[in-house]
Amino acid sequence: METRPEVCIAIVGYGGMGKAHAYGYRIAPLIRTLPCRPRVVVITGRHAKAVEHAAHAYDIPAWSTDWRAAIERDDVDVVDVCTPPGAHVEVVVAAARAGKAVLCEKPLAASYAEGRRALAAVREAGVLSAIGFNYRRLPAIALLKQLIDDGAVGEVRLWRARWLTDEFADPATPFDWRFDRGLGGTTIADLGAHLIDLAEWMVGEIAEVLAQSATFIPERPDPGGGPARRVTVDDASSALVRFASGAQGTFELARSCIRRPCDMALEVNGTRGTLFFDYARLNELWFGAADDDPRLYGLRRIRAEHPRHPYAAQWWPLGQGVGWGSSFVNQVCDLLECWPEGPWEPSLAVGLRVQAVCEAMERSAAERRWVTLAEVERAAQHSE
Amino acid sequence: METRPEVCIAIVGYGGMGKAHAYGYRIAPLIRTLPCRPRVVVITGRHAKAVEHAAHAYDIPAWSTDWRAAIERDDVDVVDVCTPPGAHVEVVVAAARAGKAVLCEKPLAASYAEGRRALAAVREAGVLSAIGFNYRRLPAIALLKQLIDDGAVGEVRLWRARWLTDEFADPATPFDWRFDRGLGGTTIADLGAHLIDLAEWMVGEIAEVLAQSATFIPERPDPGGGPARRVTVDDASSALVRFASGAQGTFELARSCIRRPCDMALEVNGTRGTLFFDYARLNELWFGAADDDPRLYGLRRIRAEHPRHPYAAQWWPLGQGVGWGSSFVNQVCDLLECWPEGPWEPSLAVGLRVQAVCEAMERSAAERRWVTLAEVERAAQHSE
Amino acid sequence: METRPEVCIAIVGYGGMGKAHAYGYRIAPLIRTLPCRPRVVVITGRHAKAVEHAAHAYDIPAWSTDWRAAIERDDVDVVDVCTPPGAHVEVVVAAARAGKAVLCEKPLAASYAEGRRALAAVREAGVLSAIGFNYRRLPAIALLKQLIDDGAVGEVRLWRARWLTDEFADPATPFDWRFDRGLGGTTIADLGAHLIDLAEWMVGEIAEVLAQSATFIPERPDPGGGPARRVTVDDASSALVRFASGAQGTFELARSCIRRPCDMALEVNGTRGTLFFDYARLNELWFGAADDDPRLYGLRRIRAEHPRHPYAAQWWPLGQGVGWGSSFVNQVCDLLECWPEGPWEPSLAVGLRVQAVCEAMERSAAERRWVTLAEVERAAQHSE
Amino acid sequence: METRPEVCIAIVGYGGMGKAHAYGYRIAPLIRTLPCRPRVVVITGRHAKAVEHAAHAYDIPAWSTDWRAAIERDDVDVVDVCTPPGAHVEVVVAAARAGKAVLCEKPLAASYAEGRRALAAVREAGVLSAIGFNYRRLPAIALLKQLIDDGAVGEVRLWRARWLTDEFADPATPFDWRFDRGLGGTTIADLGAHLIDLAEWMVGEIAEVLAQSATFIPERPDPGGGPARRVTVDDASSALVRFASGAQGTFELARSCIRRPCDMALEVNGTRGTLFFDYARLNELWFGAADDDPRLYGLRRIRAEHPRHPYAAQWWPLGQGVGWGSSFVNQVCDLLECWPEGPWEPSLAVGLRVQAVCEAMERSAAERRWVTLAEVERAAQHSE
Repeated sequence: METRPEVCIAIVGYGGMGKAHAYGYRIAPLIRTLPCRPRVVVITGRHAKAVEHAAHAYDIPAWSTDWRAAIERDDVDVVDVCTPPGAHVEVVVAAARAGKAVLCEKPLAASYAEGRRALAAVREAGVLSAIGFNYRRLPAIALLKQLIDDGAVGEVRLWRARWLTDEFADPATPFDWRFDRGLGGTTIADLGAHLIDLAEWMVGEIAEVLAQSATFIPERPDPGGGPARRVTVDDASSALVRFASGAQGTFELARSCIRRPCDMALEVNGTRGTLFFDYARLNELWFGAADDDPRLYGLRRIRAEHPRHPYAAQWWPLGQGVGWGSSFVNQVCDLLECWPEGPWEPSLAVGLRVQAVCEAMERSAAERRWVTLAEVERAAQHSE
Repeated sequence: METRPEVCIAIVGYGGMGKAHAYGYRIAPLIRTLPCRPRVVVITGRHAKAVEHAAHAYDIPAWSTDWRAAIERDDVDVVDVCTPPGAHVEVVVAAARAGKAVLCEKPLAASYAEGRRALAAVREAGVLSAIGFNYRRLPAIALLKQLIDDGAVGEVRLWRARWLTDEFADPATPFDWRFDRGLGGTTIADLGAHLIDLAEWMVGEIAEVLAQSATFIPERPDPGGGPARRVTVDDASSALVRFASGAQGTFELARSCIRRPCDMALEVNGTRGTLFFDYARLNELWFGAADDDPRLYGLRRIRAEHPRHPYAAQWWPLGQGVGWGSSFVNQVCDLLECWPEGPWEPSLAVGLRVQAVCEAMERSAAERRWVTLAEVERAAQHSE
Repeated sequence: METRPEVCIAIVGYGGMGKAHAYGYRIAPLIRTLPCRPRVVVITGRHAKAVEHAAHAYDIPAWSTDWRAAIERDDVDVVDVCTPPGAHVEVVVAAARAGKAVLCEKPLAASYAEGRRALAAVREAGVLSAIGFNYRRLPAIALLKQLIDDGAVGEVRLWRARWLTDEFADPATPFDWRFDRGLGGTTIADLGAHLIDLAEWMVGEIAEVLAQSATFIPERPDPGGGPARRVTVDDASSALVRFASGAQGTFELARSCIRRPCDMALEVNGTRGTLFFDYARLNELWFGAADDDPRLYGLRRIRAEHPRHPYAAQWWPLGQGVGWGSSFVNQVCDLLECWPEGPWEPSLAVGLRVQAVCEAMERSAAERRWVTLAEVERAAQHSE
Repeated sequence: METRPEVCIAIVGYGGMGKAHAYGYRIAPLIRTLPCRPRVVVITGRHAKAVEHAAHAYDIPAWSTDWRAAIERDDVDVVDVCTPPGAHVEVVVAAARAGKAVLCEKPLAASYAEGRRALAAVREAGVLSAIGFNYRRLPAIALLKQLIDDGAVGEVRLWRARWLTDEFADPATPFDWRFDRGLGGTTIADLGAHLIDLAEWMVGEIAEVLAQSATFIPERPDPGGGPARRVTVDDASSALVRFASGAQGTFELARSCIRRPCDMALEVNGTRGTLFFDYARLNELWFGAADDDPRLYGLRRIRAEHPRHPYAAQWWPLGQGVGWGSSFVNQVCDLLECWPEGPWEPSLAVGLRVQAVCEAMERSAAERRWVTLAEVERAAQHSE
């Protein structure tokens, strides 16, 4: 007889991310034996018809267009925020005030100042909180982190990361929230947030940044047929960074790269080794060690699916491969594994930290100078 | 309000394949809007404790150690057979006699003669039946088939396929059913069945085969600590084939390849183009066309995740990648899409056909000569 | 002051292979410090104008349309045979009778019987002889052999090799010697000879073979505008082989593969490791070992250019890469390194052995049965 | 009878670059029919024994330790400067004054100011001059340039280039000129010069730069056994750039990357396409076009060896591959093709321009701010 307690979830937002999160909840118990069972009890959204359809598709018993009412339901334990970024903070604050644990998609907010409000609310309420940096939960990336922590590359000296897509390459793509700065749609935040998180997770705090940005296509067709809309975000940005440790790094984030669907890659060079990950081959990790037999000089293509690898044993047989969805399943597993004590990792504090780096990059691009994280944090405290 | 009818499924076998199938049923409605809703109502297996655990993990409301009783339940519409191959036919026959539709994992049977019994039962009962050649439902492979059908490679001349694993490479791996001919565990059937299916699906009927087999490790430790057990299957086999169309092909199937986890690859060369698939990069397909601009001479690495590609639009955003599991989800979607009228593809008749080719390869290896499919079929009819 | 003796070479044949060999002689002294200096003193061919042009291009002081006269020159030490295969034996025999060392391009002859004549002449004359299996001298392939010999893969169990090109894919390609069986142009010999050599070099003697062949385009335009010419060679062949050691292997040789320019690949699976080479990335070698850390599960992409690798130290800096030409340079270096004592490796005896395997494959394809090498050798002795 | 005039060359410097250039002269006539014949008449260096050895190895009739005397020989037409960078300018100036054409290895000088002296001397003397940006002459890179010029990617928006090696990764590597700023050994200049040249060649002038540099290993063992020597160059640098066209770019140059032998890669994203080159697979070029059939979504792996590709037809058969050396051969061919009229491309003016960008990067890293090229040029004029 099934005796494990249920954890009840409200998903706010039924779009692409809502679907990915729903997938995570459905599959988590099949992949890992958890101390509790997730049950999504309600999903919300602005369009009744669409959210009802999503509820049926995701096998969720209730739906609503009133997210406030939904998250305040007594039976809801966790609020999972899957709206566009500009709406995150309002939901997070309300959920925290209602005493609910919060899982918020990235980026945390449309600005660092907003993000601080979210973290404050969560801290004040004393609820568990997590930010949706799901890429940490891909086997190959988790292995990469593990190898760094185990000293496999020695002291990290160089970090490089890029994320290239063609999402914005076609001038005919109509305006939506992703082109609107006010709604949080910068390329720095959308693509960069994940990479900044991974950088700080693996290499430690970023101390300062220097960035440049470009908006190659300044206007977009109005989806309603009105006059062209002005784009207020970056199509592409790049940045140099200095870590507190003295390591140096580079970032490239671009949605203007023809036939680059979602090509994230990152590399770490340390005193004793190199690690390389290419998301297009997400079940692989490349590794080379300085003390390896010189006759075997080169990098290994690790098939990051071996039972000895993180997250791998519970999935499919070796060599069968997982996809993007697996990261959401693993995220649910990790969060529920320690429910309700926590701690949840990465917390909203991590999300806020990443927001600070995004803000430093934006400021640097605008002011054409190195910007320290300390400066961003001071400015935010000052303006409160 | 949800008004779609339910289709109720009994899964027989809770192991790796049972898990993959359970995954398929859980996710199918999330990926595609179907005319009915799958509901797994019972799962069965020999070990009460393990099957109960599986039922909880897969969120299935009932479990049983009595598969006959389970499949005969009134509310069961479909019996999904996920046992080891040697037990398939008995379950298929019973399910058909009980008037249930049948989805049977591959290979259909431990022998061609046995497989014929299964097909006969299904035909007699007039129930829908399908064989679990799930690789057909990977986006890149479905695209490969589509391109062939659209004439992208012209007339097929050469086929080559290989499946290399290291499953049997370690002599310390103890004996289990996979090493036992009687239970259907040949390498030809286990790895080859998928490739033979794909070959006939894409190139047409195989007319004759010439194979060789090797068993490099003739004995295995007994898992219960008894004397070593004799291995009665092939560790590795290879085959030349001639298709009815005049095309020629090669197959290699081996479980003796160190550090080859599950490396399936296939290639088709036609009069006008080449197509290549490597399962280690399962979201990619390689294509080159004779009439392409010679200045761009080479193969394209198609990212088989574009909304224009089969199965892709309903999954994740472009570039995010799916894994092995997606093929089981797509299989459920395809089968339920036409429930209850059918037809289901590939049917058990396809499974039986593949069994005939497996048998021809085994016979050829034993008798060291070319064996025609006609001969295998004649012999079976004769012996009945 | 330069005091090393000169070794004088006559090149017979000024086409593609003559050019590659001339390249080898020009560069050898630059790459390795040799005990003697190669000097090509004469080049020959049938077309005066073309051979004169080649002599100038390759910086060779003399040219001739009379190959017999050229090879008999007193100052000639080595005769380098670069004609089409059907003419090899006549030149080799004449050179041997004139007391010259012989380097002969592959395949040795248009038939095994012819090849035996060549070897007999060389043996009778007691001259050094070598066959041009230049791929042995690519760094990555030499490293592959070295690793096998060092036991890195343990006992070899499986061998697979393929060579795919699109040379014959276009039906408009006019007839020439490559389509003429009498002139030695089979696909088995042209592409297969190299692979057979590598197989026996690495795995030991092939005991028996089973092959199939196809000629998809039976006629070719006559280059002189006459009626279409009948093709008397195979467009594509494949073969299963059994080695004397008990290892099993497969070969595929095809010139019908659209957009496959010259894609040779080979793989060895042993009891303890796997080695893989892909000629399209000729400076790389892939290796996986059973006793490697399971957390690093996978294959290494060795950059076969490290100073510790064969042939690498004398070439370019690490990572710069060599091309096909380097194999001819290394061949010259190896042969001259032990001039005039020898032994030269691989000798014409190796070339003849490969010819026997080619013949076994041809016979097997024609007679649709396993053919042993012993049978081929017996038949040849018998018919003399 | 050979009637083409000879062009006589003096090579100054017998080390790695001297060898690569000697290779180029030896092979050029074999690869392309040129209007004149190159003849290296003398090679020079500081160590008599070593330069004599090199002369024999490279088949050069004379050698000298007195480079001034050598380059002033009456029979010398071209002086080829292959010394370490710090010595380039002195040789170039002397050669120009002696009325000789000059081919100078990159980087042109140890500083922009020095480089200006070299260009002035060449201009004053009215001699032909070229800078050794040999990577322009690899088939795949020449094809990349050609495709950009033909509009295949539309207007270039993003450029990214990196060069990663492990040359400096081992702290035990002893001090030599490469660690000495005064001798011109910066990583920016050594690795970056090629990439900067390619960037400006393909995308147009760089307007401003922002760079950071690191020297991770501040001291190196003295090769003579003395006290440790201070390293005065960067181990690694990275830079953001803005092109005059408005395109943006990134550079990464690092010699601290374990198991990265010489891994240069570059990518161009334009309004209509993407081009990508990875030097580790130097016979390949990747290309994707926006207007390509979406069903074939992805990048093509062009095998840049087709007779229709630049430099390819005269080399080896399709698919055989060339190496680094081929770029030096092609360089000789291109320069001699238009001898003695010229113009030679890229000229010393290009070399000087690249030097200006290097200097801007160094200054930017030191002063932690954007530096324009205009500023660098003004400063140099001012200080004269």
